[in-house]
Amino acid sequence: MSPRGRRPAGSDTRGEIVEAARAEFAERGYDAASLRGIARRAGVDSALVHHYFAGKPALFTEVMTVPVDPAYLVETVIGQPRERVGEALVATFLGIWDSPEGQERFAALARSVLTHEEAARMLREFLVREVFAKVAVAHNPGLDPATAELRATLAAGQLLGMAMLRYLLRFPALRRATVPELIAEVGPVIQRYLAPDA
Amino acid sequence: MSPRGRRPAGSDTRGEIVEAARAEFAERGYDAASLRGIARRAGVDSALVHHYFAGKPALFTEVMTVPVDPAYLVETVIGQPRERVGEALVATFLGIWDSPEGQERFAALARSVLTHEEAARMLREFLVREVFAKVAVAHNPGLDPATAELRATLAAGQLLGMAMLRYLLRFPALRRATVPELIAEVGPVIQRYLAPDA
Repeated sequence: MSPRGRRPAGSDTRGEIVEAARAEFAERGYDAASLRGIARRAGVDSALVHHYFAGKPALFTEVMTVPVDPAYLVETVIGQPRERVGEALVATFLGIWDSPEGQERFAALARSVLTHEEAARMLREFLVREVFAKVAVAHNPGLDPATAELRATLAAGQLLGMAMLRYLLRFPALRRATVPELIAEVGPVIQRYLAPDA
Repeated sequence: MSPRGRRPAGSDTRGEIVEAARAEFAERGYDAASLRGIARRAGVDSALVHHYFAGKPALFTEVMTVPVDPAYLVETVIGQPRERVGEALVATFLGIWDSPEGQERFAALARSVLTHEEAARMLREFLVREVFAKVAVAHNPGLDPATAELRATLAAGQLLGMAMLRYLLRFPALRRATVPELIAEVGPVIQRYLAPDA
């Protein structure tokens, strides 16, 4: 018997909304999923979804167990002095994923995305809309948007590849590297993609 | 002397050697696996293994269905004029993986490595010994070996991340990019890691 006794009915409404969101994102993808549809699946009023979650991005990061709101990441890139964008983004990325729990979450997320097409699709749509489209234009007002998006995506590719080799494939040189070393080596690469002439 | 009876060379001997190698690499990892041990598992003479395969790296690439001998990749990096290393490596990498069949092989290899620890271990040991250790020192005679290896690994991370986002996760900006565009954008990054002051 639990010393805390029975939970009142409806106490797991938040969890039911998250499960409904998981199903909605998996079935429809990120772009087509709606908070209204998620509320309908969970059998609750839309207002209740808004009570628990700030919006679709926040609900998605909860479903994917991403430990950070993407708005924070975008703010890190947009809010920095132009010449510090690269090192700030690498430092923020490692701050999110480099703890033991972060590494486990990264590994789980990577495996899920690589083995389930619907997970890949929803993560892709989410990142393009909520992160890359915003980052691409932030520090590149004169650049054509297609090139800016390509460079933002390549920057993400560098961070993804670094994380795969450090957390999942455990290459010795990357296991040994300290966070300051990684910021020093990778920061200028990210800088080159996102704000090349700073 | 072989603990098992030796068989005459038959039409499927080569295939049996590959299967024996697959088991040997999976059980012992790349570094500890030996051609002698593979021959013993296959029940053939070591000379027969040497008849079919130039050496352990060639047998490993066959097991992993990697469509290129790593010696070719290393030669591409080492044999270039120093200032062309980056673009040459990106062009060679895309030449190997960018065809429809190459993309499928890349996806299969990535999924296998990310979901099986023994596959990750053997690929890691293979790449460190046969590729990175050689690339790291090639164009960096004055640099300390640890930093050279870290940079070679980060360069591999950029190529891996680019391939994951182009072939597996299918990010639109990377799907649209042409091979010359990718060489132009990513080449300087690889150059910076492998031969920074060229």
